[in-house]
Amino acid sequence: MNIETLFNGRKIIPVVTIERMEDCERIFGGLSDGGLLAAEVCFRTECAEEAIRYARKTYPKMLVGAGTVIDGGQCRRALGAGAQFIVSPGLSEDVALLSAQADVPYLPGTVTPTGIMRALALGIDRIKFFPACNFGGLAGIKSLSAAFPQVRFMPTGGVDQENLTDYLAYPKIFACGGTWMTRGSREEISQKSREALALAASIKK
Amino acid sequence: MNIETLFNGRKIIPVVTIERMEDCERIFGGLSDGGLLAAEVCFRTECAEEAIRYARKTYPKMLVGAGTVIDGGQCRRALGAGAQFIVSPGLSEDVALLSAQADVPYLPGTVTPTGIMRALALGIDRIKFFPACNFGGLAGIKSLSAAFPQVRFMPTGGVDQENLTDYLAYPKIFACGGTWMTRGSREEISQKSREALALAASIKK
Amino acid sequence: MNIETLFNGRKIIPVVTIERMEDCERIFGGLSDGGLLAAEVCFRTECAEEAIRYARKTYPKMLVGAGTVIDGGQCRRALGAGAQFIVSPGLSEDVALLSAQADVPYLPGTVTPTGIMRALALGIDRIKFFPACNFGGLAGIKSLSAAFPQVRFMPTGGVDQENLTDYLAYPKIFACGGTWMTRGSREEISQKSREALALAASIKK
Repeated sequence: MNIETLFNGRKIIPVVTIERMEDCERIFGGLSDGGLLAAEVCFRTECAEEAIRYARKTYPKMLVGAGTVIDGGQCRRALGAGAQFIVSPGLSEDVALLSAQADVPYLPGTVTPTGIMRALALGIDRIKFFPACNFGGLAGIKSLSAAFPQVRFMPTGGVDQENLTDYLAYPKIFACGGTWMTRGSREEISQKSREALALAASIKK
Repeated sequence: MNIETLFNGRKIIPVVTIERMEDCERIFGGLSDGGLLAAEVCFRTECAEEAIRYARKTYPKMLVGAGTVIDGGQCRRALGAGAQFIVSPGLSEDVALLSAQADVPYLPGTVTPTGIMRALALGIDRIKFFPACNFGGLAGIKSLSAAFPQVRFMPTGGVDQENLTDYLAYPKIFACGGTWMTRGSREEISQKSREALALAASIKK
Repeated sequence: MNIETLFNGRKIIPVVTIERMEDCERIFGGLSDGGLLAAEVCFRTECAEEAIRYARKTYPKMLVGAGTVIDGGQCRRALGAGAQFIVSPGLSEDVALLSAQADVPYLPGTVTPTGIMRALALGIDRIKFFPACNFGGLAGIKSLSAAFPQVRFMPTGGVDQENLTDYLAYPKIFACGGTWMTRGSREEISQKSREALALAASIKK
């Protein structure tokens, strides 16, 4: 399945880092309270697997994926924990293969035409554009789209409340990833999530 | 053959998108009228193959290549249509191999040192630098040239009348690709082509 | 061995181009006089191998590596000349393998998440970030560090006296490469080397 199909209209994917399991309720709960029913859980912390299991069990309406998956070993563990999608900062052919075998959507990152061509050769046409802010931002995506009209992007890295609507208004961008709504108290997270959803809803494509 | 040798002094390569066959005469004719005897035909449209055949037959003095070639299948079709050179936005080893077997010059795109090293390993030292405007433009090419003095570049993406001479005046740039002269009526295309050639001719290297 | 361990506290790696053997004494001598006991000798000039041999013999306290090593053949020759470390502008798997077999640290360059993932898969977590100035500079490294906290960087390309301390103050940067102290007379090189070391020493991490 295409990751955009899985996202089912979700335009904002919170990138969540869980350092300690006691943060799960505050963060996943805050996102859920605010209506942001998606989380890309960074697979770099000790408790990332447990956090994915927790979120899947506690917030069954939330779409829970693993982010920062950099090799096949991490991908296997993320799939085992129940990750519903896999995201990498770059493109790993091992991760692409394992995700495809598990029928779980894989969103690789790439910022270069060569990377996009490798993704397309693997049958992947949804791309994470990371770190967006250092590779031209929206202008960078527009340039790449001129050569690759069949590709749709999810920029991550430097996306925030200020530029979210600019990114989402561009038709080749199917979603944005960001961390700005994942910090603070549960109430603050909930509030920022609501504001982010309102911004996304304000766009008339 | 080296693509620069094939270009035989041509410094400007119009990047042409033919959406309908009835546009061929206006665009190829306009370029030809203006003296711009080269076209990189984007291999993304339905009629790209037919357009390459048309241009080769109708404008025999024009050098006609295929651009945006992203995989081996497209490369085979482009070669079959008579493309005299093959351009990719990134680097595809399949395309490099097929082009070499057909003895047709291949110009892969790359913006990173790793990409240039892969191209050199394949025997390719002429590089498309795309999208130029998002990877530092002329300054980006200068930085890469410091490490790769054996490489010569064709920037594409954001090249226009304003910056053409800056790019072409740099000795490591053998040509520029662009679309700015491919739009409008046949007369407008012809006029912009003449102006572009005059700009290129004004440079004393 | 990790290249950072080999560098043993050296924070500045002069990138040296020796066009003629008679320049060796001026350049290596100037660096040594100024206390900068390291040199990455560009492996592009005719006399690069001989220059590495000369520096290793004449300045035994200096750490002497080969830079701009782009393929396995060059790597073999650099190792044969006594290079104590190998640097590439990009990432070559052949060079990585040959260096590992010789137990000589390899510092590949990469500016993209995909490149970093490939390096990590090869067991390499020290990365040359080149050309730094065209890929976001310090901000670019910070963005990549967010996804790859296990990686430490050596920026090269546009590093000079003006921005050296900004780079070195960032904890994920283990050293900086540059050419600004390698030009001029032996006395000038010595003076600029001393100034560079003083700048590096002024940083309190």
